Amino acid sequence: MTEPTKGERTKKKLVDATASLLRRQGYHATGLSDIVEESGAPRGSLYFYFPDGKDELACAALAASGVEWRARIGAAVADARDLGAALDAVVTLLADDLEASGWQNGCPVAAVALESTSRRVHDAVAAHYAAWQSTVSERIAAFGVPKPVATQLATVALAAIEGALLLAKVHKSREPLVTVGAALRAMVATLPKPRKR
Amino acid sequence: MTEPTKGERTKKKLVDATASLLRRQGYHATGLSDIVEESGAPRGSLYFYFPDGKDELACAALAASGVEWRARIGAAVADARDLGAALDAVVTLLADDLEASGWQNGCPVAAVALESTSRRVHDAVAAHYAAWQSTVSERIAAFGVPKPVATQLATVALAAIEGALLLAKVHKSREPLVTVGAALRAMVATLPKPRKR
Repeated sequence: MTEPTKGERTKKKLVDATASLLRRQGYHATGLSDIVEESGAPRGSLYFYFPDGKDELACAALAASGVEWRARIGAAVADARDLGAALDAVVTLLADDLEASGWQNGCPVAAVALESTSRRVHDAVAAHYAAWQSTVSERIAAFGVPKPVATQLATVALAAIEGALLLAKVHKSREPLVTVGAALRAMVATLPKPRKR
Repeated sequence: MTEPTKGERTKKKLVDATASLLRRQGYHATGLSDIVEESGAPRGSLYFYFPDGKDELACAALAASGVEWRARIGAAVADARDLGAALDAVVTLLADDLEASGWQNGCPVAAVALESTSRRVHDAVAAHYAAWQSTVSERIAAFGVPKPVATQLATVALAAIEGALLLAKVHKSREPLVTVGAALRAMVATLPKPRKR
């Protein structure tokens, strides 16, 4: 792997700062000046690397969040011996991350999803959730759950965890995530036992 | 009941316009000019009735949304013969409302909840969700579900429906709400049968 160039490092700083601000406070509350300040990158670099401005940065930040969280969740569930344990690991990871941020860091996408944004940002949000739906569904199916059940379960898990993250952030409490995690585990425990892989 | 005064009608117009804009696009995207325009009220009346400006209006709008949706959901579940039917009625009501708005109208509180706002608005959001948690929990308990189970189920239902509303809005589809509704019904079907009231 080659070292990233100075330009790549600057770009990454800008994208990471944007992602961090979007999940803390949403799209409209995040100004270009905030992004420059949070990133520590020179203001000119923002216009140089992202000539389309905030929308382009927001889409890059959503994509980067997707890559980061796919890796973090993948690592968290790697050792899970069954679907219940995997759900547990995901809920614990999210609760730890939210609590460690002083209840600031919500879902990197949800805030943007609920605000009025450009078509370009909306499409990036929709693509992001569609990709998570596929990933979660495939992960569930890998535990021996039949495809159609896995698809529905992925929707329920995504929705319930997304809503629990919102409630946990609002109430500054792990409790909604813990309760939803337990309900999801109880739900998967009612599934027929999968055949051994 | 006495007729509302002209002042009360103007106030209501401003609050309704704010509520409608908050659920379509969130807090920061909604400017005072948008509220004046959407309401049709004279600009001066906004400063006269809401001297503290947008935060005061937002808190009034959250309270008004709470009253409105408590009534609408109450009416929707009034005839439900069991908890499953009640959940069905709520999910159908929310899906109908979102679809009728061209997938614009999300939860009146969620967008504001995920943005950075003042302490005052945050507290109003937290109080709003706490009130819904109590209402839903009491409604579930009224179907004969033991209190501690009802409390947990209320958290799961709130979180899952909130997340499904977000996904439904993003994907412009009833599907996430329908799937989550079915999962919640399946979940309550596993509860021990309540004694007859």
